[in-house]
Amino acid sequence: MSMIGILGGMGPLATVDFMDKIVRLTGASRDQEHLPLLVANLPHIEDRSSAIIDGGADPLPALLDGIDLLNRNRVGLIAIPCNSAHHWYAPIRAHSKAPVLHIAQTCVAAVPHTARRVALLATGGALVSGFYQQALAERDIEAVTPNEAMQPRVAACIREVKAGYLDLAAAHLEEVLAMFAHDGVSTALMACTEIPLAAQRIASPPLTLIDSSLELARAVVTYACERGWNRPR
Amino acid sequence: MSMIGILGGMGPLATVDFMDKIVRLTGASRDQEHLPLLVANLPHIEDRSSAIIDGGADPLPALLDGIDLLNRNRVGLIAIPCNSAHHWYAPIRAHSKAPVLHIAQTCVAAVPHTARRVALLATGGALVSGFYQQALAERDIEAVTPNEAMQPRVAACIREVKAGYLDLAAAHLEEVLAMFAHDGVSTALMACTEIPLAAQRIASPPLTLIDSSLELARAVVTYACERGWNRPR
Repeated sequence: MSMIGILGGMGPLATVDFMDKIVRLTGASRDQEHLPLLVANLPHIEDRSSAIIDGGADPLPALLDGIDLLNRNRVGLIAIPCNSAHHWYAPIRAHSKAPVLHIAQTCVAAVPHTARRVALLATGGALVSGFYQQALAERDIEAVTPNEAMQPRVAACIREVKAGYLDLAAAHLEEVLAMFAHDGVSTALMACTEIPLAAQRIASPPLTLIDSSLELARAVVTYACERGWNRPR
Repeated sequence: MSMIGILGGMGPLATVDFMDKIVRLTGASRDQEHLPLLVANLPHIEDRSSAIIDGGADPLPALLDGIDLLNRNRVGLIAIPCNSAHHWYAPIRAHSKAPVLHIAQTCVAAVPHTARRVALLATGGALVSGFYQQALAERDIEAVTPNEAMQPRVAACIREVKAGYLDLAAAHLEEVLAMFAHDGVSTALMACTEIPLAAQRIASPPLTLIDSSLELARAVVTYACERGWNRPR
């Protein structure tokens, strides 16, 4: 039996939410039908967005330490419920013995075939990195990013979730969604794993929201259940 | 810097809830002020209650494997968010290099000084084991256990949470709480980590509820923050 390795803590509440999704998606009726997880919740990994945009401290060594920890404990698959960390996906994948799912690949695969333009809600770092825009372009979908007035609201939403202020985070997110709806965009990618925690507090979002954390959780559960990790022996 | 080790998966949703409590209690304003956790979510550990009551398969070897995994990765403290597993607390503690908190000790310490009788909501196994009754007796508090008609409702509540049916679980729990309130008991220990997930769905419980998972999380956060694990270097 293999375990699912989760490199988390970026941030911790998003990691808890991601685990919650895995547990609920597994469809188990008793403990022994659930999936084994090893979760390295390592919140001290340096800020990803700051490293990408401002030349802040490089998080890659700490990311690879986390990958090493999971591999030493023989996980069979690794998922990283932090979008911005996927700026370093290539070196992480090259370093890891266990396969590592790519959150943007699983998220973009969930965009409906009818959508030709989608809003991209992400950290400033992930937007500058560009891996979402590239994954969308491969499916001929246009990424619409927040304007200069709105991106600080997205950043504030993310920051408030990391500090545990979900209602404040939701208020920022509502402003952003209203702006996109006004511009005629009908689908948005929550391409930061903090954002779904804010979105849960919005009763009727004016756009179809695609949750990167949920899509990564679906991919993890499918991978592990296909291999029988939920029913050992 | 040390990590907090969590031996979980008993059950998985209770482990997620326990982590959620740790994250919210930490009072951090950004990722880097949160606590590092290593979570071994091992749902295949044999059923604890069945082993205690019916001579079912012994979970101790798998519990010790989980303890070994956490110690190999140099955690500085271990918490086990499963009350019934504490039937094996003595061998677990003797086996572990890292200190292991006792969930019943942290939970019973939270009972108000005025309470002389408290209801004990737990698995049949934990009730037979008796460690809660003993911890309460040491404080001269009487443990009131559900009668034969009500304990199956407690067991059903726990089972429904493990299967993800929280509303059904809450309906069972409401019946149990009403019975205790009718009998003049004013405080109940949720001495099983699944029960708080059902209790969250009850708007106005008729008793004061003490949450074993929350009290263990408080003890973990206090221990780790006192040692500066949230602010390394």
